[in-house]
Amino acid sequence: MKGNEKAIVIFQPSGRRGQVEKGKNLKEASVLLGVDIEGLCGEQGVCGKCKVRVQEGFFEKYGIESSRESLTPLTGTERDDLAESECEQGFRLACMAEVLHDVVVFVPEESRLGKQVVRKAAGEIDIPLDPAVKTYSVELPQATLEDSVGDWERLQTGLQKAHEIECPTIDYHALVKLQNTLREGEWKATVTVWMGNEVIRIQAGEVEKAYGAAVDVGSTTVAAYLCDLSTGELIATSSMMNPQVTYGEDVMSRISYTLTNPEGLEQLHRTIIEGLNGLLGDLAGQAGIQAEEIVDMVIVGNTCMHHLMLNIDPRYIGKSPFPPALHHSVDIKARDLGVKICPGAYLHVLPIEAGFVGADNVGVLIAETPYNEEKVRLIIDIGTNGELILGNREKLISSSCATGPAFEGAEIKYGMRAAPGAIERIVIDRESKEVRFKVIDKEAWNDETENMGAKGMCGSAIIDVLPQLFLAGVIDRTGRFAKDLETPRYRVVEEGAEFVIAWPRETSIDQDIVITQDDVRAIQLAKGAMYAGAKLMMRAFGVERVDEVILAGAFGSYIDKESAALLGLFPDCPIENIRSVGNAAGDGARMALLNVDKRSEANEWARQVEYLELTLEEDFDKCFAQAMWLPHMKDKFTSLEHLLPRKQDGKS
Amino acid sequence: MKGNEKAIVIFQPSGRRGQVEKGKNLKEASVLLGVDIEGLCGEQGVCGKCKVRVQEGFFEKYGIESSRESLTPLTGTERDDLAESECEQGFRLACMAEVLHDVVVFVPEESRLGKQVVRKAAGEIDIPLDPAVKTYSVELPQATLEDSVGDWERLQTGLQKAHEIECPTIDYHALVKLQNTLREGEWKATVTVWMGNEVIRIQAGEVEKAYGAAVDVGSTTVAAYLCDLSTGELIATSSMMNPQVTYGEDVMSRISYTLTNPEGLEQLHRTIIEGLNGLLGDLAGQAGIQAEEIVDMVIVGNTCMHHLMLNIDPRYIGKSPFPPALHHSVDIKARDLGVKICPGAYLHVLPIEAGFVGADNVGVLIAETPYNEEKVRLIIDIGTNGELILGNREKLISSSCATGPAFEGAEIKYGMRAAPGAIERIVIDRESKEVRFKVIDKEAWNDETENMGAKGMCGSAIIDVLPQLFLAGVIDRTGRFAKDLETPRYRVVEEGAEFVIAWPRETSIDQDIVITQDDVRAIQLAKGAMYAGAKLMMRAFGVERVDEVILAGAFGSYIDKESAALLGLFPDCPIENIRSVGNAAGDGARMALLNVDKRSEANEWARQVEYLELTLEEDFDKCFAQAMWLPHMKDKFTSLEHLLPRKQDGKS
Repeated sequence: MKGNEKAIVIFQPSGRRGQVEKGKNLKEASVLLGVDIEGLCGEQGVCGKCKVRVQEGFFEKYGIESSRESLTPLTGTERDDLAESECEQGFRLACMAEVLHDVVVFVPEESRLGKQVVRKAAGEIDIPLDPAVKTYSVELPQATLEDSVGDWERLQTGLQKAHEIECPTIDYHALVKLQNTLREGEWKATVTVWMGNEVIRIQAGEVEKAYGAAVDVGSTTVAAYLCDLSTGELIATSSMMNPQVTYGEDVMSRISYTLTNPEGLEQLHRTIIEGLNGLLGDLAGQAGIQAEEIVDMVIVGNTCMHHLMLNIDPRYIGKSPFPPALHHSVDIKARDLGVKICPGAYLHVLPIEAGFVGADNVGVLIAETPYNEEKVRLIIDIGTNGELILGNREKLISSSCATGPAFEGAEIKYGMRAAPGAIERIVIDRESKEVRFKVIDKEAWNDETENMGAKGMCGSAIIDVLPQLFLAGVIDRTGRFAKDLETPRYRVVEEGAEFVIAWPRETSIDQDIVITQDDVRAIQLAKGAMYAGAKLMMRAFGVERVDEVILAGAFGSYIDKESAALLGLFPDCPIENIRSVGNAAGDGARMALLNVDKRSEANEWARQVEYLELTLEEDFDKCFAQAMWLPHMKDKFTSLEHLLPRKQDGKS
Repeated sequence: MKGNEKAIVIFQPSGRRGQVEKGKNLKEASVLLGVDIEGLCGEQGVCGKCKVRVQEGFFEKYGIESSRESLTPLTGTERDDLAESECEQGFRLACMAEVLHDVVVFVPEESRLGKQVVRKAAGEIDIPLDPAVKTYSVELPQATLEDSVGDWERLQTGLQKAHEIECPTIDYHALVKLQNTLREGEWKATVTVWMGNEVIRIQAGEVEKAYGAAVDVGSTTVAAYLCDLSTGELIATSSMMNPQVTYGEDVMSRISYTLTNPEGLEQLHRTIIEGLNGLLGDLAGQAGIQAEEIVDMVIVGNTCMHHLMLNIDPRYIGKSPFPPALHHSVDIKARDLGVKICPGAYLHVLPIEAGFVGADNVGVLIAETPYNEEKVRLIIDIGTNGELILGNREKLISSSCATGPAFEGAEIKYGMRAAPGAIERIVIDRESKEVRFKVIDKEAWNDETENMGAKGMCGSAIIDVLPQLFLAGVIDRTGRFAKDLETPRYRVVEEGAEFVIAWPRETSIDQDIVITQDDVRAIQLAKGAMYAGAKLMMRAFGVERVDEVILAGAFGSYIDKESAALLGLFPDCPIENIRSVGNAAGDGARMALLNVDKRSEANEWARQVEYLELTLEEDFDKCFAQAMWLPHMKDKFTSLEHLLPRKQDGKS
């Protein structure tokens, strides 16, 4: 079978694809295509770490048909290692299944290497600690024949006496455990109370710690933070690709999936809930606790992610007049959603601003509080959708633009999440065109050591790379590769022009990491949409310049503000007034987790924001086209004069 | 195989047992033993109506071992008719399975004939209609680009404008359906609101009716009432044996089951919840609605039933100092308990008074409101436990006594529930000893027609029979059969003395319906416990006589008050001041369903009732022994002088 015949192999959710010789197993294919699949046993089918699932059906986008018959049949080894239900669902061990025909393979989170994403973003946040969920310890008098009041009434009296809390209700699951827990702790107990209103958990004896989770569900990336509710401290951070990407890469394609598949909504809902449970399990594992010890949870996400997570039909937010199912924040018992934390816990979902400006943007809003400022702030939140807020204490405008997942590493040939092995900084020498880069979790740059182990480029590098190529003259202002480049890094292959960022010896995937002409275009589209959006908002607000720019993004490392400015992600602003804040939506979620007043603040301000529908602005297309240039076709950047090549001035 | 060899067959939950020739099938055995099993096909294994389940294990009480091998193997016909899961669980068709050895067989509710219990008790109740759950119709402006507020906020505004209701929350399940329902009804909708506080359901268009259920979960009998919440009308009534009886006939044996079986609590919980779902389905079926249309539910039950239904460990209410898990009423989402009504609905469980005086007694309390009266009322609620309330507006005392299930027809050889075929009235001629009786649902008495079709005796007949036997001189004051009786109805068989109530031609079971010496003793024990309890309570209250007696019971027909007085169920009271009210606990539950103020009234008064632990009273045993006599060993009954035989006066 081995020979020159090839088949197309596509790995989900990364979207990495390529031609692979028939007869190669999926693990070998994954190495060739730069996809990281776990494996400890040297492809002996023993460790069971390399589980993947065949995606069946016709994939229009790729023009291929994938089925279980695209692989060699299940081996006995696999039957031994996989559960029966897994076999039924099409799971295989990547090291055992050999490619016969074109195939699409999903790599589940647990089979991916380098799960832990570096989240520099989740640093200190400055907020007084006053969480919605608090714990109280009580010591109760034992029941006697003279005082045989019910255990719950005894606990209520205890809470009242020791802490002056009148707690009228108790969650059913807490009630069920009440009696045995009180006796186990010899009438000493720790009581977890939600909003001063409902006992949601009882623990025997005195328990100091209580945990909460804040989660930002992005279209492409889901980031989660575990906090100690007694100190406010950030205990653990985790993230994953949104597992819904299998069903569509952006919001609109997922909405359309729910419209064309009868079970589509339920599938997308279950997929994200299962993903969240995995992520929460990972957070808990890092902290050495059980996920059931998480007693509060705040969730943000764009309107579509919000609806899909809640199993609410997203069809109406997909078409005019785009009304969401609800605007206000909502508290839902985690168990009603199948989220496996403390069974009595609530999940607090932050409010929505407008059709496409969702709870994630509200998270940004309460984290960055432009409504408290005199100065006009432009806040750019980069995700699969770019979300923008412009305003100050007088007025707030928001808008949303479809940037695509380029900045999150998807749809970029060697794009990846901000995980170990990801290139996070790129500098290209203007003369030699030599590339210096830095990899996450490594101190040294590639010109200091050869042991870089790069695998791809994460968001911050993707923002670096275009200005660097441009400043080095590799690409021109329109994003086209210069044709007369004398460097071995530049070449034209079958698919088009590309530029080598890292040589095989600098990688752990044993192949060149390149940036292609298609990649450049994708990044231009994304940044152009952002720029155009900001400009139209400024016009609506009535300002020529903004005082401050805040760069936020859930995709991992901090953005280099000079790179972002040179890329032309936003109109001109003094470099010193630009701040890069990491995942502000996640910060907002954490704030609402740690301080209950932030929840009412969110509801209050979410309703004040005016939404600007960019695509309805008459010169949007023109604005967008001009903004595709580096940094812009016409606009002047006085703040960048010292950085931009002189010759550019003449050209414009 | 057919011959003289016999095996013991025991049918659950009725407890009917007897020796049956080996080789008979279970349907034949059921006819012999007076157990009603459905069957439409003439024992051809076709209709599948006669499903029963083999109970496996050693049954200590009966001294027999029962297993699947006690019956002939599954036939092909059964494999065709039964689901695979049913076969696995030990289900059989009674008409196919032949008896090989001793066996215990459970007859599920749906296989029992005569399910519909006549509930004369559930008549009119006089209560202003103000339910906790109300419906409102709204017509909303359609969403536009100018007004694209969330659907939930739009609905809130609509409720506010049309009905002046500020409803802050919406149930998750209602929220999920909100958008499609509003559009389906073209922005007209009917909204179901719980406690003015939470939207629990949305329906498209204008829907007039809303339904609620009130349920009284007794140890032996479960009674359920379906009410129209818009009119207060009683729509349907249903009842069943509590399916938990398989695990123990009284409260203590069920508690001990949970203590000795690791999964015991969960089993008992699941059993009653499944039973409730069946009962609710039956109510809905009668009314021609879906069970999901039931939007509110009130439950009463003794403390043990209350705990088991809520999956709360009952061990602590079984031993001193008997504290329940909670005293106060509690609202739990039906879905959290697996109760299949409207998914957003709450289940309201009335409060508990004390260890063994439960929510059922609180139901009686709010139905009969002794706390509003000057006169001293004795309220007797007859169930597997007898529960007593004595008091007036000054003071309320309650107590509880273990009567056993005799009055509910269990443990009485021909006892049965109040279903069609049940003898409900018995009169014995003092001279001829001839028996006149009346059967439920038949107008004529047995001396007017032979077509009686009697199957057994229900509670009201069980209360009639002892006074009638006594007045006719068949039994003496101590309950012993007179030896010199010249009537073919009296005979002494292997098991002891018995008296024939109905001849085979008057029955549908083709055998004598008799009352045995054991039956007489069981009834004496039950009534003696009641009498002694009432007497000790009167002493504690400080009264010699009570002004009024109210007879309540969940077991079916009304009690004849003269019979109850002559039986000596309670101390002397003028006949005209005795009232028989049927299922007062159920009435109380219905009142709390129809009027929300009754719920607070219940919580308020439940805490005012003083509990008297009868067994701690020093002369309880003596009181009890004297009260076993008919009507009592020593006490005088001036109100009954005209009814009691003169010669008795001399004897005492």
